[in-house]
Amino acid sequence: MDSQDDLELQVAVAKVSKYAVSESGDTVETIERPHGGLSLVVADGQRSGKSAKAISNIVARKAISLLADGVRDGAAARAAHDYLRTQRSGQVSATLDIVSADLATRTIVVSRNSHCPVIVVTGPNTALHLLDEPSEAIGIHARTRPVITELPITLDTHLVVFTDGLLTAGERYGESFDLPAFVRDQLQAHQAAKNDQTLPAFQAGALADALLARAVELDQGRPGDDVSVVVLSVMTRQAPDPGPGDRDLAIRRLTIRFPIPAQLART
Amino acid sequence: MDSQDDLELQVAVAKVSKYAVSESGDTVETIERPHGGLSLVVADGQRSGKSAKAISNIVARKAISLLADGVRDGAAARAAHDYLRTQRSGQVSATLDIVSADLATRTIVVSRNSHCPVIVVTGPNTALHLLDEPSEAIGIHARTRPVITELPITLDTHLVVFTDGLLTAGERYGESFDLPAFVRDQLQAHQAAKNDQTLPAFQAGALADALLARAVELDQGRPGDDVSVVVLSVMTRQAPDPGPGDRDLAIRRLTIRFPIPAQLART
Repeated sequence: MDSQDDLELQVAVAKVSKYAVSESGDTVETIERPHGGLSLVVADGQRSGKSAKAISNIVARKAISLLADGVRDGAAARAAHDYLRTQRSGQVSATLDIVSADLATRTIVVSRNSHCPVIVVTGPNTALHLLDEPSEAIGIHARTRPVITELPITLDTHLVVFTDGLLTAGERYGESFDLPAFVRDQLQAHQAAKNDQTLPAFQAGALADALLARAVELDQGRPGDDVSVVVLSVMTRQAPDPGPGDRDLAIRRLTIRFPIPAQLART
Repeated sequence: MDSQDDLELQVAVAKVSKYAVSESGDTVETIERPHGGLSLVVADGQRSGKSAKAISNIVARKAISLLADGVRDGAAARAAHDYLRTQRSGQVSATLDIVSADLATRTIVVSRNSHCPVIVVTGPNTALHLLDEPSEAIGIHARTRPVITELPITLDTHLVVFTDGLLTAGERYGESFDLPAFVRDQLQAHQAAKNDQTLPAFQAGALADALLARAVELDQGRPGDDVSVVVLSVMTRQAPDPGPGDRDLAIRRLTIRFPIPAQLART
């Protein structure tokens, strides 16, 4: 499957809060893996606003801290469950997804503790399947474990991970969001643009933004829940950073953008 | 100073390894602050390659984990020092910078344990100054403390934080990198583009990339050390995400891009 092209890992996270709630109850964090690659943790605390944020924050924190120590993903997910269940006496639940690009094993590892599926698209023909085995939220029952899937790191692989605000977008208005169809359409449009050489440079970001925008549209501009979307893509590198003798400088980049609440800035 | 414009926090990180060394000895991580905002941790381990990475990794991990728990920045820096000094018996040093956009105090907090200055540019006239008080690397001496500076979150504030690979770029070739002049030039060109309405959408990213590219150029394409650049900018929001009745949806975004080493991908 792999070509001789240089590959690039692209990750894009886009988040929005439930309408009229200032703080998202979702937490998304990322950390470098000590043996190479990175992990993303997506936690959605029960309910919304401050109480949900407190829950998703302790879950994400625990998982991130263990992953940073080199603990394997499945053990980190189990530990986050045990920790939440102990802290909150089994009264409070959270969903937890861990997605890792593990350069040591050359795989993408997906650990789901969520009823939300993960969308996987592979190959130039955008073959799509769902990781949707039944999976339980953490924090409530004894011995909850994640459902783990391992995929090879190959060209034209895309993963879409999300919290349930995306899944339920439009429901209040009798509409539903056909996520697989939407993702396939977006990626096929991308494929066409690639043939036309009018390719967007940052496909993962374009897809995450398109999904979030569509969800907000289906909710008529007032998201009914916190929505978080994570896209991870393995792409051909568009423009390697040239060094001497065409050596690739292999620059790594991370960016963050968020609005500063007006009441803080407008003093 | 503040206008009625909506503000946006922009963060850009760009990293490159020393020439012919596959792994950067620098570690840059980011984490959400539990009371609002985010922190960035920039650690540079003594020497380069694997041993340096191991050091910068344990330093960054300790700091990130404490910041995630809500520990104040100065205490996190002291703890990272104590931890490294205990682990490595005071034999190994690292530089550590922590930069936080703290929405609870409405300030940017800079904690330096590094001989590298932090460049601060404020206001529409790009007034520039350096945070360059003498500051000691962590890991060696007893009771090492960070030098802490607090700045208000206001429009047109830019911070440039970097590891010493940027400072020493070109030295082997008898050249030096006048960083303040370069940063001022870049931002003034930005100001001109703003007046011409040809503004780059993501100024922090443009500045981080320009700094890294210039450093690599001064090193004739073979970086003499690991180089990490972090730019944090408080900007006018170019395109708020429109919701109903012009309500701003306040979308938060994070992106990561990095090349996948060829020996891993080309199997």
